Amino acid sequence: MTLPARLTGVIPPVCTPFTPDHQVDTASLVRLVDHLIDGGVSGLFVLGSTSEVAYLPDGHRQVVLDTVVGHAAGRVPVLAGVIDMATLRVIDHVRTAVAAGVDGIVVTAPFYTRTHPAEIEKHFRMVAAAAGLPVFAYDLPVAVHSKLGADLLLRLAADGVLAGLKDSSGDEGGLRNVILRARDRGDITDFSVLTGSELTVDNALWMGADGVVPGLGNVDPHGYVKLFDHAAAGEWEAARVEQERLVRLFELIGVGDPSRMGMSSSALGAFKAALQLRGVIASGLMAPPQIPLNTDEIAQVEKYLVAAGLL
Amino acid sequence: MTLPARLTGVIPPVCTPFTPDHQVDTASLVRLVDHLIDGGVSGLFVLGSTSEVAYLPDGHRQVVLDTVVGHAAGRVPVLAGVIDMATLRVIDHVRTAVAAGVDGIVVTAPFYTRTHPAEIEKHFRMVAAAAGLPVFAYDLPVAVHSKLGADLLLRLAADGVLAGLKDSSGDEGGLRNVILRARDRGDITDFSVLTGSELTVDNALWMGADGVVPGLGNVDPHGYVKLFDHAAAGEWEAARVEQERLVRLFELIGVGDPSRMGMSSSALGAFKAALQLRGVIASGLMAPPQIPLNTDEIAQVEKYLVAAGLL
Amino acid sequence: MTLPARLTGVIPPVCTPFTPDHQVDTASLVRLVDHLIDGGVSGLFVLGSTSEVAYLPDGHRQVVLDTVVGHAAGRVPVLAGVIDMATLRVIDHVRTAVAAGVDGIVVTAPFYTRTHPAEIEKHFRMVAAAAGLPVFAYDLPVAVHSKLGADLLLRLAADGVLAGLKDSSGDEGGLRNVILRARDRGDITDFSVLTGSELTVDNALWMGADGVVPGLGNVDPHGYVKLFDHAAAGEWEAARVEQERLVRLFELIGVGDPSRMGMSSSALGAFKAALQLRGVIASGLMAPPQIPLNTDEIAQVEKYLVAAGLL
Amino acid sequence: MTLPARLTGVIPPVCTPFTPDHQVDTASLVRLVDHLIDGGVSGLFVLGSTSEVAYLPDGHRQVVLDTVVGHAAGRVPVLAGVIDMATLRVIDHVRTAVAAGVDGIVVTAPFYTRTHPAEIEKHFRMVAAAAGLPVFAYDLPVAVHSKLGADLLLRLAADGVLAGLKDSSGDEGGLRNVILRARDRGDITDFSVLTGSELTVDNALWMGADGVVPGLGNVDPHGYVKLFDHAAAGEWEAARVEQERLVRLFELIGVGDPSRMGMSSSALGAFKAALQLRGVIASGLMAPPQIPLNTDEIAQVEKYLVAAGLL
Repeated sequence: MTLPARLTGVIPPVCTPFTPDHQVDTASLVRLVDHLIDGGVSGLFVLGSTSEVAYLPDGHRQVVLDTVVGHAAGRVPVLAGVIDMATLRVIDHVRTAVAAGVDGIVVTAPFYTRTHPAEIEKHFRMVAAAAGLPVFAYDLPVAVHSKLGADLLLRLAADGVLAGLKDSSGDEGGLRNVILRARDRGDITDFSVLTGSELTVDNALWMGADGVVPGLGNVDPHGYVKLFDHAAAGEWEAARVEQERLVRLFELIGVGDPSRMGMSSSALGAFKAALQLRGVIASGLMAPPQIPLNTDEIAQVEKYLVAAGLL
Repeated sequence: MTLPARLTGVIPPVCTPFTPDHQVDTASLVRLVDHLIDGGVSGLFVLGSTSEVAYLPDGHRQVVLDTVVGHAAGRVPVLAGVIDMATLRVIDHVRTAVAAGVDGIVVTAPFYTRTHPAEIEKHFRMVAAAAGLPVFAYDLPVAVHSKLGADLLLRLAADGVLAGLKDSSGDEGGLRNVILRARDRGDITDFSVLTGSELTVDNALWMGADGVVPGLGNVDPHGYVKLFDHAAAGEWEAARVEQERLVRLFELIGVGDPSRMGMSSSALGAFKAALQLRGVIASGLMAPPQIPLNTDEIAQVEKYLVAAGLL
Repeated sequence: MTLPARLTGVIPPVCTPFTPDHQVDTASLVRLVDHLIDGGVSGLFVLGSTSEVAYLPDGHRQVVLDTVVGHAAGRVPVLAGVIDMATLRVIDHVRTAVAAGVDGIVVTAPFYTRTHPAEIEKHFRMVAAAAGLPVFAYDLPVAVHSKLGADLLLRLAADGVLAGLKDSSGDEGGLRNVILRARDRGDITDFSVLTGSELTVDNALWMGADGVVPGLGNVDPHGYVKLFDHAAAGEWEAARVEQERLVRLFELIGVGDPSRMGMSSSALGAFKAALQLRGVIASGLMAPPQIPLNTDEIAQVEKYLVAAGLL
Repeated sequence: MTLPARLTGVIPPVCTPFTPDHQVDTASLVRLVDHLIDGGVSGLFVLGSTSEVAYLPDGHRQVVLDTVVGHAAGRVPVLAGVIDMATLRVIDHVRTAVAAGVDGIVVTAPFYTRTHPAEIEKHFRMVAAAAGLPVFAYDLPVAVHSKLGADLLLRLAADGVLAGLKDSSGDEGGLRNVILRARDRGDITDFSVLTGSELTVDNALWMGADGVVPGLGNVDPHGYVKLFDHAAAGEWEAARVEQERLVRLFELIGVGDPSRMGMSSSALGAFKAALQLRGVIASGLMAPPQIPLNTDEIAQVEKYLVAAGLL
């Protein structure tokens, strides 16, 4: 399918369920796709950070692409992350994703190496030229250790290099600056701004963002769709009530003991435990070397689900 | 061939020459291997940061492995970097490197994701179990944004997980702590400590390091071998004189204009320009999206080579 | 005067005008106080980052306190920053501020030294005990290099140590978490949350913040008061329109050439140039070692003021 | 007294003993000064990071200056840190230190504020002009979050602004670059390079540094003087043996439980506990809000002292 000129709505970053021997659990992944589409999402974003893309070998990435594109079957568009260190490696992932039939790709700045704005710009231009599909810039300083500047984003948008932005920088002031300047300029027409910040979706939509890519949307897609729909209808008070429920639910990402594991293990472990508890996926297993939640931590996840009305 | 129980000497991180269409220039790479072996190096480290590994797609990595292992032909051992974000991806690279016939592998902590010491330890243990070859920890906080602690390194050394350390942290006090504690403990016998800090090799050897992995060793392998040999013979004054010549030469990494390019483009561009000027490789091209040095900047590289007696 | 149980509204961080010989220009400061009070602000925050507090010797700080407390003369409450490295130094500033008659104090975490959450908590408790006045925590990671956690803030609020939070962390999700949890708990009654993020004031108020401390409010207090009043009246569309005008105006902080000066010189220089252009203060001079804007840069400030309807 | 044209030797950063009510314990401080001078040090550095300068109010700083300058009584020169956020505040401290009779001052880059190399340069020039005494640049990125570049240091040295460098950056390669370039240039004659890195003093002296400012030198001044003297006599093997003993002793800085306290509390607490155990100062108390070591942790300090032959 073709992406709309301006992608909007809830496009969750799809978790990747695992089997006990560290393979992609495709049966669970298929159920997760249905869970999300049934929840009313506008698209699916595979192979983003929430999918544990950094942990997935190329073979696993291929299985995810094939499974999700195949099972979505055109019901909603599929975006694919092409997360790797620099341009030629990213272009390899682009080719795989395009061949698998995705509808758009999501690209970060180079990482591991010390990069420069001029190199980041060249990177996006080369990747987009190779893609031949809509490209979304993925602004994720916590992972890549550089921030995409507003001038760079707007220049690439005006030149048709970028179809949109997935902003996970947490910098709402910077995001507003991009949204407002893109609107004020005459040379940028369809630039889709998606926020990855789960706790301020009503704010982002209020500022003019087009959609949201919430990791927590795996657990509660209906909630984020309800929030988006309220906002789209101008029912802001109702949107806020829903958002506040989701803020309270989001605290589940902190259940993991920080003396035993990193934030990634805690947050992704909690998302997957919640999906298992809700009966969507078979197991909360994560890719190594992440540390699994223990029984007590999973019990806390359960309490959050109950409190949020999800169990 | 088999690695010595304790790897010592100069093991340069081999640059990856490029053709104009961004392929590996194997003819130049073969000449570079000969240049290094003729210079007296004790081993070759391919697919490290200096090789632009972050920029090399898997196909290029395969060509590098095959070319260097094949052309070294057992004259010196070959270590291979298996640089990727997390465990399963790294293990894929390990399999490729082992199949290509390398003699040891070099592994960083996970990156892109927010990791934790417990996860880093699990990562090294899983990678080493998959490798079946000597594994060197690669401590490179500037790239992976975490530092390998002394306790972790020594525990992994004592357990036989690690054969050595390639320290590019720049933390000489920390390095000395590792060297001294490894020596003081009774349960660590052959743990090879290699420094990646080009400017303090005499210091590192003085403190008890076993060898050096100098990026600048591509340009002047004879110099680093001379420095190492002086130190090994206890001729410290002569070692220092040679080291100081190399400190002055190392300033060539700063020729690139920081308003136009990042540190990586400047340093790697200077190394490659120097190799081209010395007639070793055909071109100073770098992988995209790095920014090439301009004519003036290359002329500065030439001056440094002349001053160091290399042209 | 006494602070209201819950401070609300616009409380700008008052700039500190300078004479050519680096003294506090009290005549200009008095005019600035009137400009702000005439603009409808609810309070004044002196000796915050926007006041160049880091650059002001204790003598200058005393002049600022006396001038502003004296000239405000109870028309609006005055909060004072007591910015220094650690507890005993901060308590010295607290004593001076209390003696000068301020109505509340604003305290950061320790800085320069490597601190710890337990030390930060002890710091706030000791400073508050010494103050005997309402204490606001100042969350400013960009300056102090640590972030105040939600658990810490809520515990200190529940214990009556903190009267409020001035959040300049830029972390809107974290801010919402604090606001919502403070509301959900039964043991926190009057905890005033103020945002320092100029570009997302409507968002912050929408999420439940009580007020705003906008550096740009020096230049356009009427605008921020209008924005606040619209929000307080539930006129969110009008609030957004005003906020967007201020977002466009805020771009003036970027007029300074980053090859010549730091962000502080550029932003504070622009605020002061704007105040001079608007006839409020006599000169845009900043404390050394900040770099002054040049004529071209000041001309750009003027254009932003014209575009915003302020000249 | 006047500083030598080129300061050399061991110049420890003098700890500040405390009474139970958080005042400077001058009786202990006097004993500490004698302990250090008896140990053979070449100078004393007061009000540096190891003195808890960030925690000391101006009154305490004055007491330290008067006590140490008075009790040293010209036996060795006294350097004073003038640690504060920006230029005018630093100049106030300079005036106090000069009036107290110190022989040189030690100045960091501005902090708290986001600064720029041009502003740092202006800062050093203004402070030096106000001092009228030899000025040492204090390179301490861990505290001030910027690194002093070699070009800046050498330009200030050539212009007579700086008499020397106290390098606590941990960047030995950068330090060597400064030392070598200062030697190679014809326009820098007496620029004294002092390292603050306790674990690599033999290396620093080997590279050409003039002296050392070791925090651990409070605990064992005789050891550092012995190390320096061996190096000065060209007895490098003996210097290394002594250095290695001190490396093992230095591990005492890690006795504090990182879940209870920061690195500063742990390291300074260990130094002070060691001084108390050695009978030099009356108490290991630290300035608030630092967390004291507990009995078990102090017992560990004792074991390190015994192992190092100091008890």
